[in-house]
Amino acid sequence: MKTVETIAELKNKISQYRQEGRSIGFVPTMGYLHEGHLKLISSAKSENDRVIVSIFVNPLQFGPNEDFDAYPRNLDRDRELAAEQGADLIFAPSVKEMYRGEPFATVNVHKRTNALCGKSREGHFDGVATVLTKLFHIVAPDTSYFGMKDAQQVAIVEGLIEDLYFSTELRAIETVREEDGLAKSSRNVNLTENERKEAPSIYRALSLGKQLIDEGEKDPDEVVKAVTAYLQTHTSASIDYISLLSYPSLEPVDRINGKLILAAAVKFTKARLIDNITLNHQ
Amino acid sequence: MKTVETIAELKNKISQYRQEGRSIGFVPTMGYLHEGHLKLISSAKSENDRVIVSIFVNPLQFGPNEDFDAYPRNLDRDRELAAEQGADLIFAPSVKEMYRGEPFATVNVHKRTNALCGKSREGHFDGVATVLTKLFHIVAPDTSYFGMKDAQQVAIVEGLIEDLYFSTELRAIETVREEDGLAKSSRNVNLTENERKEAPSIYRALSLGKQLIDEGEKDPDEVVKAVTAYLQTHTSASIDYISLLSYPSLEPVDRINGKLILAAAVKFTKARLIDNITLNHQ
Repeated sequence: MKTVETIAELKNKISQYRQEGRSIGFVPTMGYLHEGHLKLISSAKSENDRVIVSIFVNPLQFGPNEDFDAYPRNLDRDRELAAEQGADLIFAPSVKEMYRGEPFATVNVHKRTNALCGKSREGHFDGVATVLTKLFHIVAPDTSYFGMKDAQQVAIVEGLIEDLYFSTELRAIETVREEDGLAKSSRNVNLTENERKEAPSIYRALSLGKQLIDEGEKDPDEVVKAVTAYLQTHTSASIDYISLLSYPSLEPVDRINGKLILAAAVKFTKARLIDNITLNHQ
Repeated sequence: MKTVETIAELKNKISQYRQEGRSIGFVPTMGYLHEGHLKLISSAKSENDRVIVSIFVNPLQFGPNEDFDAYPRNLDRDRELAAEQGADLIFAPSVKEMYRGEPFATVNVHKRTNALCGKSREGHFDGVATVLTKLFHIVAPDTSYFGMKDAQQVAIVEGLIEDLYFSTELRAIETVREEDGLAKSSRNVNLTENERKEAPSIYRALSLGKQLIDEGEKDPDEVVKAVTAYLQTHTSASIDYISLLSYPSLEPVDRINGKLILAAAVKFTKARLIDNITLNHQ
């Protein structure tokens, strides 16, 4: 497996893959890979001749109060893990390589942003859309892989690809969970021992909500109430939000119908965890 | 020559060209073609196997006080003229085909916009960048053709392609002029008989400025003064701006050096005309 740091070198490799008639799967990441990422890479590997993983902590998607510098980085370990899953190429550019000074142009997203985590992260998804535009242009992947753990990001990338007619196809991959149901996340290590025991209640609470809907509940408020009550009873975490929205449009619903997402964000002492379940009920 | 109105049909044609190994030249226009456009089409034809001309009056690049509805349209005539120059395909989508409701995402330009015509057209180049992003994605042209008459647009498209790594190459084509030097424009028909006689003075004034620089003038203000004086003496038009800026960055310069643009915009009673000369002086 090769690691390249410049766009010119990456483009050379990609031309070579194209000339050989290889299909290209792309997994854009900010590095510090965990099992969620690894499933994206192995999924890409099973569906494409060549898999490119980008590792780039994108300054444009960090707000002024979010710590870009403190974001964890470990390229050597990432390279090893990606190689084990069959990645063919790591693209690990510097910030200077991706942004030559202040951006000349940015891609700004006007829908699906003002809900869930986007509410408190103004400009975050513009940064995501801008860097993905560059990466999609450079890599020109047949298929791009994103994890459903960040369902809002999936919804926004789906909208972006459709609206601006990018030629890549989006593949959304299911959340990877611990045996007890807790969604895998680099942040889980920041839980205290007791919080770690409570944390599987997030997925249990969401599953309870799903069960209510499966059993015929049609009122979104009742579902949110039940999920909230479960979390309040079973964890010491404070609730950031519990939302039941249309998916992928992420708009409030009056009645349970169609494609929906039930999502939660909760704060433990040193870790803010998110999780979600998507549903389709007529 | 074929005319297609849907993105799906256009993409089919383009896949076919690609499978046949044809190179694709692209001329994006808002229609109502004049000789400037025709030179773009013939240039594209001389350098590519297939030439696609888009005809789309883009609502996103019109300001609230600019009359999108009154913009002149004549598709039948455009088709004929484009065919004569060797265009292979006209893409003439409806507004609904290009924008499904309010834009999900827009491409916003942060440099080179606040000068020349951009000063008085807030958001105009965001609209241009957004529609070109869609068109570049749909057409995937090897080379895209723009006229130097709108030098600011060329500078912005050049920045856009470089900054976001679009895979098309930009070709800037020299301004087409009447025998007396007046730049060709659909707006020239709105000149009175007397104004039409005066209008070649715009290019003469710019040429005078170039001559001063060729002869050694190093002070931009002196050049602008001379161009202004010439225009005031030889025309009844009011001057919107005379600017001497770096090119393509479009920034003010203290001293004449490097790549520059000398540009003018003047208003006759019913026509606002623009013209420019680019220079390279060390």
